[in-house]
Amino acid sequence: MQEDLVKLAGDAAKAAQQLASFDTAMKNGLLFSMADQLLLHKKEILKANKIDMRSGKEKGLSPAMLDRLLLTSGRLDTMAKAIREVIELPDPVGKMSGMRTRPNGLQVGMMSIPLGVIAIIYEARPNVTSDAAALCLKSGNAVILRGGSEAFNSNLAIIEALRKGINLSNGDPALVTFVPTTDREAMLELLKIDKYIDLVIPRGGEGLIRFVAENSRIPVIKHYKGICHLYVDKDAEIDVALRLLIDGKTSRPGVCNALETMLVHREIAGQFLPAAGEALKKKNVEIRGCAETRAFLHDAVPASPADYDTEYLDLIISSKVVGSYEEAVEHIRNHGTDHTDVIATNNLKTSRRFIRDINSSSVMVNASSRFADGGELGLGAEIGISTSKLHAYGPMGLEALTSKKFVVIGEGQTRHPID
Amino acid sequence: MQEDLVKLAGDAAKAAQQLASFDTAMKNGLLFSMADQLLLHKKEILKANKIDMRSGKEKGLSPAMLDRLLLTSGRLDTMAKAIREVIELPDPVGKMSGMRTRPNGLQVGMMSIPLGVIAIIYEARPNVTSDAAALCLKSGNAVILRGGSEAFNSNLAIIEALRKGINLSNGDPALVTFVPTTDREAMLELLKIDKYIDLVIPRGGEGLIRFVAENSRIPVIKHYKGICHLYVDKDAEIDVALRLLIDGKTSRPGVCNALETMLVHREIAGQFLPAAGEALKKKNVEIRGCAETRAFLHDAVPASPADYDTEYLDLIISSKVVGSYEEAVEHIRNHGTDHTDVIATNNLKTSRRFIRDINSSSVMVNASSRFADGGELGLGAEIGISTSKLHAYGPMGLEALTSKKFVVIGEGQTRHPID
Repeated sequence: MQEDLVKLAGDAAKAAQQLASFDTAMKNGLLFSMADQLLLHKKEILKANKIDMRSGKEKGLSPAMLDRLLLTSGRLDTMAKAIREVIELPDPVGKMSGMRTRPNGLQVGMMSIPLGVIAIIYEARPNVTSDAAALCLKSGNAVILRGGSEAFNSNLAIIEALRKGINLSNGDPALVTFVPTTDREAMLELLKIDKYIDLVIPRGGEGLIRFVAENSRIPVIKHYKGICHLYVDKDAEIDVALRLLIDGKTSRPGVCNALETMLVHREIAGQFLPAAGEALKKKNVEIRGCAETRAFLHDAVPASPADYDTEYLDLIISSKVVGSYEEAVEHIRNHGTDHTDVIATNNLKTSRRFIRDINSSSVMVNASSRFADGGELGLGAEIGISTSKLHAYGPMGLEALTSKKFVVIGEGQTRHPID
Repeated sequence: MQEDLVKLAGDAAKAAQQLASFDTAMKNGLLFSMADQLLLHKKEILKANKIDMRSGKEKGLSPAMLDRLLLTSGRLDTMAKAIREVIELPDPVGKMSGMRTRPNGLQVGMMSIPLGVIAIIYEARPNVTSDAAALCLKSGNAVILRGGSEAFNSNLAIIEALRKGINLSNGDPALVTFVPTTDREAMLELLKIDKYIDLVIPRGGEGLIRFVAENSRIPVIKHYKGICHLYVDKDAEIDVALRLLIDGKTSRPGVCNALETMLVHREIAGQFLPAAGEALKKKNVEIRGCAETRAFLHDAVPASPADYDTEYLDLIISSKVVGSYEEAVEHIRNHGTDHTDVIATNNLKTSRRFIRDINSSSVMVNASSRFADGGELGLGAEIGISTSKLHAYGPMGLEALTSKKFVVIGEGQTRHPID
């Protein structure tokens, strides 16, 4: 297996090297063809998905898991449409930046280049297969896909269609490579091939991500969890704070940019908390509060210390009254996860301090935490979210799949005089 | 030891969090004070250096190694001057980029922030101690320094002076933390503290760098070696190509951006090689050539296949005649190390192709490989060179020690309508 995987990765690296010189039209040609073949292979893909669904039911997957796994003709249309949308995105490769002329006349600049080979390790959702492949190819990278066992047959069928598309468009099918096994041993082997693979992006539960991060010799871009805070400053507008609270907690509680904790300044607690309690009650949200919170909200459950470190991903929110701006910042620094933190305030100075003091990957002023998303922030598409600061931080678009090389142009300049 | 190191790293992380909100003047104040104390502690530092020099001689270090280790009053002046030069550099933190307004009125931008805690693992040269500390602090990061055993006493004395400077300027001395042992076990423990340390930069020989890369759970920025190529295209100007060859090979053969291989297009070999042979002979450079090279240069030694993968770091160069541009690119892709590669050509189209086809961290057209250096490229200073594409690629200046967070400003926008 080890040698097989090294061979697969080596082929991907070779294909990537070729792709790096492709112009935008050639890359878009591949994507067009991939979208076409995805639609032309609907029958095979849906058949493969039926097998996965059947064994998923046998294994007793939850209805939510089964729904994620399910493919339909409509969902395949959506997947093909997503590939076509990537065609419309600007090509991140070849862009020059930081141009300058040095005193000796050398022109220096930086050019965006692909990273090379990107391995995506993911669970369930078969749509990740085509989304990730499209984003990697558009940014000039080859992709190695290692999906979960539940979607094995679906992923295989999707990748066969994509590779056929690449082939018909005169590309190297090794640009989209499938790891033909889902066992952990093979994943461990894959994570050692730093000779050919440049980046690993794990997408899935915390267990998977930790396993990848701890066992990889290849750089990993990861995020574990999102404990996102809303700090309601003493100078907040109550209406704005309520909007951010309800959208942040209830518009989609199961995602990582949902709110998990509200911190309320003591001076505004008497005004804000009763209104918040009412609004949250309407949405069936359970509140776990500190003693001061519960003085205003008698229905609230007492919060244990662990509550402030819990990503509920559910209709539950923890609440704490703080005595000062500084206490709020301190709390976020101690309990935050570098994902997204929000301040509601109408005080310009306080908002500027918050932006400076909080170094989470997305810092929001009077805006919902739910905007921490590649599409919403204008990145065009999202390949993942990083909560570690190296290379990429926050929602990752196409640019996060590139690097920059120095380009230097002269006319014979030397560092030392030549005699 | 493990707990001690974790405690040290935790203190550094806390100090870093505080430093992240310092403005430029406060950071420069620390640097001024560090430079002053370095000069005021000359006596102690030179005394400590004498101990290192004595035991270095006893251990039989080479004269070159001893020279690197040696500190003098003049060298300490230079180190203090280098800190003062960092004061003059623009502060990379707080810079906004990519500002845009979304259709819903949200303002989105990215703000540069420090990485947090940077561990520098290095050998010999005690000047790295103060250089690295200054660059890390200017970019808002705390630094953990782990120097080599040869310079242990010198490093300790330098760091004591720097910490005194920080303290006198009301900073937290934990901003500059010294690992008080040089054994490998402690280094292994250090490389596991991914909770507090954000980045590891190893500086030294290939053995040290590989050891760090293979044992670190923290992201590592590294470069192993520089096998830099000069490709003399058929449309090169002979004079320009000769200048690049002599500067690249002989101006400082022991450094990573020196040339190790020349590739010469067959159509120009008859003109170029005899002139190159003469110029290299004057500089006492040994040529290891392919058969075609040797047809022009009878003194050249036959090159073995291993020669094209060797970083000589000496007055030796390998030479190969190639039949085409494509063959040169293929050779560089197979034998290059993603450091620096140069084309000499006066053909605009060929130069543009080379810039596209070669994705080394520095790609040069008619400019010496020796310009692959932070100072020369206008970065102000250099903390290291990266030959892996993640996070930073090529010479790293202050900006490479920062990340970017998303900043979003609104007036109560929500992702979903609030009823």
